Amino acid sequence: MTLEAVRPSEGWGVLHLFFHLRREVVSDPHFDGQAASTEVAGLLDSFTAVPPQQVQAFSVLGQKADLGFLAVAEDLAALDRFAVSLASSQLGLALVPAASYVSLTERGGYGPSEEEEAQRLEREEGLAPGSDAHAERLAAWRERMASYAEHRLHPQLPERRVVGFYPMSKRREATDNWYLLSYDERRRLMGEHAATGRRYRGRVTQLVTGSTGLDDWEWAVTLFADDPADLKHIVHEMRFDEVSARYAEFGPFVTGLMGSATEVLRHQGVRA
Amino acid sequence: MTLEAVRPSEGWGVLHLFFHLRREVVSDPHFDGQAASTEVAGLLDSFTAVPPQQVQAFSVLGQKADLGFLAVAEDLAALDRFAVSLASSQLGLALVPAASYVSLTERGGYGPSEEEEAQRLEREEGLAPGSDAHAERLAAWRERMASYAEHRLHPQLPERRVVGFYPMSKRREATDNWYLLSYDERRRLMGEHAATGRRYRGRVTQLVTGSTGLDDWEWAVTLFADDPADLKHIVHEMRFDEVSARYAEFGPFVTGLMGSATEVLRHQGVRA
Amino acid sequence: MTLEAVRPSEGWGVLHLFFHLRREVVSDPHFDGQAASTEVAGLLDSFTAVPPQQVQAFSVLGQKADLGFLAVAEDLAALDRFAVSLASSQLGLALVPAASYVSLTERGGYGPSEEEEAQRLEREEGLAPGSDAHAERLAAWRERMASYAEHRLHPQLPERRVVGFYPMSKRREATDNWYLLSYDERRRLMGEHAATGRRYRGRVTQLVTGSTGLDDWEWAVTLFADDPADLKHIVHEMRFDEVSARYAEFGPFVTGLMGSATEVLRHQGVRA
Amino acid sequence: MTLEAVRPSEGWGVLHLFFHLRREVVSDPHFDGQAASTEVAGLLDSFTAVPPQQVQAFSVLGQKADLGFLAVAEDLAALDRFAVSLASSQLGLALVPAASYVSLTERGGYGPSEEEEAQRLEREEGLAPGSDAHAERLAAWRERMASYAEHRLHPQLPERRVVGFYPMSKRREATDNWYLLSYDERRRLMGEHAATGRRYRGRVTQLVTGSTGLDDWEWAVTLFADDPADLKHIVHEMRFDEVSARYAEFGPFVTGLMGSATEVLRHQGVRA
Amino acid sequence: MTLEAVRPSEGWGVLHLFFHLRREVVSDPHFDGQAASTEVAGLLDSFTAVPPQQVQAFSVLGQKADLGFLAVAEDLAALDRFAVSLASSQLGLALVPAASYVSLTERGGYGPSEEEEAQRLEREEGLAPGSDAHAERLAAWRERMASYAEHRLHPQLPERRVVGFYPMSKRREATDNWYLLSYDERRRLMGEHAATGRRYRGRVTQLVTGSTGLDDWEWAVTLFADDPADLKHIVHEMRFDEVSARYAEFGPFVTGLMGSATEVLRHQGVRA
Repeated sequence: MTLEAVRPSEGWGVLHLFFHLRREVVSDPHFDGQAASTEVAGLLDSFTAVPPQQVQAFSVLGQKADLGFLAVAEDLAALDRFAVSLASSQLGLALVPAASYVSLTERGGYGPSEEEEAQRLEREEGLAPGSDAHAERLAAWRERMASYAEHRLHPQLPERRVVGFYPMSKRREATDNWYLLSYDERRRLMGEHAATGRRYRGRVTQLVTGSTGLDDWEWAVTLFADDPADLKHIVHEMRFDEVSARYAEFGPFVTGLMGSATEVLRHQGVRA
Repeated sequence: MTLEAVRPSEGWGVLHLFFHLRREVVSDPHFDGQAASTEVAGLLDSFTAVPPQQVQAFSVLGQKADLGFLAVAEDLAALDRFAVSLASSQLGLALVPAASYVSLTERGGYGPSEEEEAQRLEREEGLAPGSDAHAERLAAWRERMASYAEHRLHPQLPERRVVGFYPMSKRREATDNWYLLSYDERRRLMGEHAATGRRYRGRVTQLVTGSTGLDDWEWAVTLFADDPADLKHIVHEMRFDEVSARYAEFGPFVTGLMGSATEVLRHQGVRA
Repeated sequence: MTLEAVRPSEGWGVLHLFFHLRREVVSDPHFDGQAASTEVAGLLDSFTAVPPQQVQAFSVLGQKADLGFLAVAEDLAALDRFAVSLASSQLGLALVPAASYVSLTERGGYGPSEEEEAQRLEREEGLAPGSDAHAERLAAWRERMASYAEHRLHPQLPERRVVGFYPMSKRREATDNWYLLSYDERRRLMGEHAATGRRYRGRVTQLVTGSTGLDDWEWAVTLFADDPADLKHIVHEMRFDEVSARYAEFGPFVTGLMGSATEVLRHQGVRA
Repeated sequence: MTLEAVRPSEGWGVLHLFFHLRREVVSDPHFDGQAASTEVAGLLDSFTAVPPQQVQAFSVLGQKADLGFLAVAEDLAALDRFAVSLASSQLGLALVPAASYVSLTERGGYGPSEEEEAQRLEREEGLAPGSDAHAERLAAWRERMASYAEHRLHPQLPERRVVGFYPMSKRREATDNWYLLSYDERRRLMGEHAATGRRYRGRVTQLVTGSTGLDDWEWAVTLFADDPADLKHIVHEMRFDEVSARYAEFGPFVTGLMGSATEVLRHQGVRA
Repeated sequence: MTLEAVRPSEGWGVLHLFFHLRREVVSDPHFDGQAASTEVAGLLDSFTAVPPQQVQAFSVLGQKADLGFLAVAEDLAALDRFAVSLASSQLGLALVPAASYVSLTERGGYGPSEEEEAQRLEREEGLAPGSDAHAERLAAWRERMASYAEHRLHPQLPERRVVGFYPMSKRREATDNWYLLSYDERRRLMGEHAATGRRYRGRVTQLVTGSTGLDDWEWAVTLFADDPADLKHIVHEMRFDEVSARYAEFGPFVTGLMGSATEVLRHQGVRA
């Protein structure tokens, strides 16, 4: 018997895994790259055969790592078992852990309030509170917000060309201490930040997951795009938002090129 | 002859051990996983056969480590001998130290004072000081406090699904210097913090042990829960307490999935 | 099939790669240094056969690394494939990744505005706005600016004797927070900085590339010179510019001696 | 010929050495643990045969190291030769350097002045300056101070059960800059600190040695006790002294269990 | 063909190299320590046969490194080739890079001005400006200053028993920002610092070389002395100078015992 399922009551488990590839293993004439690659592809298939489990593979630019995987699962034990299965596979002897990150999907706590939306409908759209139109629009808004939270809690990983990953925390310094701000002030700052993000809608998909108490930073940010310039532009632009300028601390940044596990391994020289 | 027993005059020794698992050892056909696993289980049994010695095993999420042990003993030499016995076992050649933490259980110095409780009984419950009812209630309170301190000094490690570990220190900065605050101010801040903790009673068990002068941080915090979301929520919520927001510095966070040593090793691919 | 091309919509990909050389591999009598060196030279030739792809090789002073490569490509997948091809070559078993840096060429956002130039022409050169002379001079200025931006976006790596590399970020501290300054203030500070740089025109070529969101710092600076004293002097002098003194955070500095891949490998003891 | 003796004009050399033990070497059936252990014991005997040379061995709790040695010698070359002799012994192949610290014993510069003592004798003990009683008492005081300085400069390492080691520096920050304080203010702060230390007299022996200009921190603190709780309590209590709260920066902390080299090695599984 | 000479237009190149010694190589019965040592001595002789090239060898105290070399050359390519020749020698397989530092000798920019000296001669020595005596003394002063700068630019490495090395930078913090001070203020602070240094004249020789833009810190400081206590005292005393107390940031400190390469290797157990 092995470990039982461990399911968070809210959110899914998210595991970022980064590996160096031991070239002396992969280039050894006795190493069967084809078989190793097929085995890895099979492990991913088995993993994703259990919905909502998802995995993505990518080649890492630069020498922080050679390749990585982003895995999502309801059950943390299944997530951990996936990592063990990679390490125990034929390719496993060539994989040297480079870094990793543990987080949970989460709702995001700073959206606009229903009261604000009700007032906005009256003020900007001239709808009288209590009127059918007002109630209808508010119901639609409620649904949109629920759908938005649902997307954060239960994301469908997008297929893009480039992935960017970085962990971050909010600052707790003498003059810039996020955790001493009022909720309203924090919501104002996050709202401004969200507006910057919306300017990249359709081009950059953000997955913000929570890791306070689970890993070294408070959040993990994973960005998906087709154009690598968009990754640079969005993070640069956001840095001018007060919430980043004054309150954000950033960990290491990793940039990856996405593909199927087979493509990524072939790209990395694991040859058939 | 080896080292004599070294027993602190107050508190028990606590040792957190984190290991990477060398896959090339474990997957070597000559490696007898069954025997290695049985030997480790035996080491744990021998260790815990001496009360109050306790050990817990867990698989570590992510690549900071593969697995870990949390051991408690009255005698630091026995604790150290336990670590040596793991390293010297058949599994030992596969274990690469990833990190560790040394601390002692301790009483916790910021509980409410008896005087405060006496006044509260009068004020909130209408019991006249000196009355039998007042004295009785105060005696009960005294017992509760003693039992609470006893639980901190001589804990019984709970069996949960998830364990979270992080070391922490109190800040000593120009404007936020914990060690320059008065005792009363520190007690007020710790009281607020304890109240946050109590909201997770029954869901999250906290083990706070002291390591000032023994290891790199001033305290070790070990959280036990069944729901990993609770680990995230309690640490996030506490971060807004002034004592954390202004005065806490946090070390690395490790999240583990708990099980028997045999389950953890099987989960990690040490196969029978 | 391997990974598809990934081309930023603006700028080229830039990859700095630094390696240690495993002496026990290179000095093994079975290691064919001549063949390994010829293979590496061939990889560089193949890479640069696809314009605008460029590579430069250098020997690294001190023990941070033994040698390095600076590669530029429109396609990030080609850039990554180049790194894999080095690692998979005969020399690859001797190459141990020491460090790397990922960035994109960029335009640079703080040049003087056309309006400023128009006013300057009137004020300093006595040319009436709207006059032919004024319009002509402004058109020439516009062209110079476009050419300058073009050189930053699509650089031709210069052939010099010495290369200096360091990543940097702008500071976000309580009193010195770059991202809270107005655009005009930032432009004034960058203008002053550019003026210092211009004093080294002809002696030091600067390549400033952007890495916000892509790697751990916000910019990569690569300096090319023939005289190593110039590298020291320009960085020292610039440190007194307010933009550096108050707002710059610097990462590690690497100094390299440039040559052809064959020269660098021979210099490093990879013998024919 | 090898290196000549290098004797500081004041103080003795102090070398803290911490090692990991390579289990695969120690548990190799061809490794003769008995012989290795006897050789190490012999090296220590030879070293301490030259007064005032002293060595102490200890097992390290946790995974920062497995074991350590604390060596003292008049001659730095002899100290360095001792480290080389360990590394070159049969056990040497199993020893992996984990950390070390270099310092010199020193006098300690902040004791009370003779003038202060003379005034105190008059004020508190009613002895008239110039009287025989006053002169006698002052002479006794002078002797005590000399003996105290002598103990710091030429310490006799105590035999205790537990050893605690940490390096530290004095802070040089904007508002808390030790090196900008007047001598009198520094002496006042150190006096308060010494008073805290005296409350542990007989239970904790402190060895404070200087390393400014020699190793990464300004001082090395080595604490000896029989009760590990005392190590925790003294450092915790001292942290509230203004000199620690505002002016101290601490390096890593190591806790060891002391014994003879033979006991420590046997405890660490180097078996006869 | 290998790399061409790279000579700074001002100053000589300085390379500090620190190595760990792989004991398993050195103690292997097939390793010919005598031959390896003779080869290294020969490499140093060849290097220093080209004036002004100089090298010094030292054994490192503690476990940051086992031994080190300090090499000086006009040509950075020759300096780099020297490092490669060590790594490629028979001893090379036993040398593991531990750290290094790259810098250039430099003039030092904060000496007294001729005008100040002229005024001092009038004020303190009663010599009338324009008089022969005044002109003569000023000429002598000019010569002394030139000779001092010459010694910094083109140093002759002294033969002492002990060497201390550390890199350092000037601070750029909100209230203590060296690079925002006026030249006069910086000269005043450096003058005070130089005065402290002069108190150790004859006992401690300082070599301050510049590394801004070349390596991670702005300067490298190498101190030479016969008495190790002098290394500790000078750095401790200087820490109270305002320029250090408020404006200095220090990197790691290394202490070495100097000798010929043969002596150092024999001391390190590389046996004939």
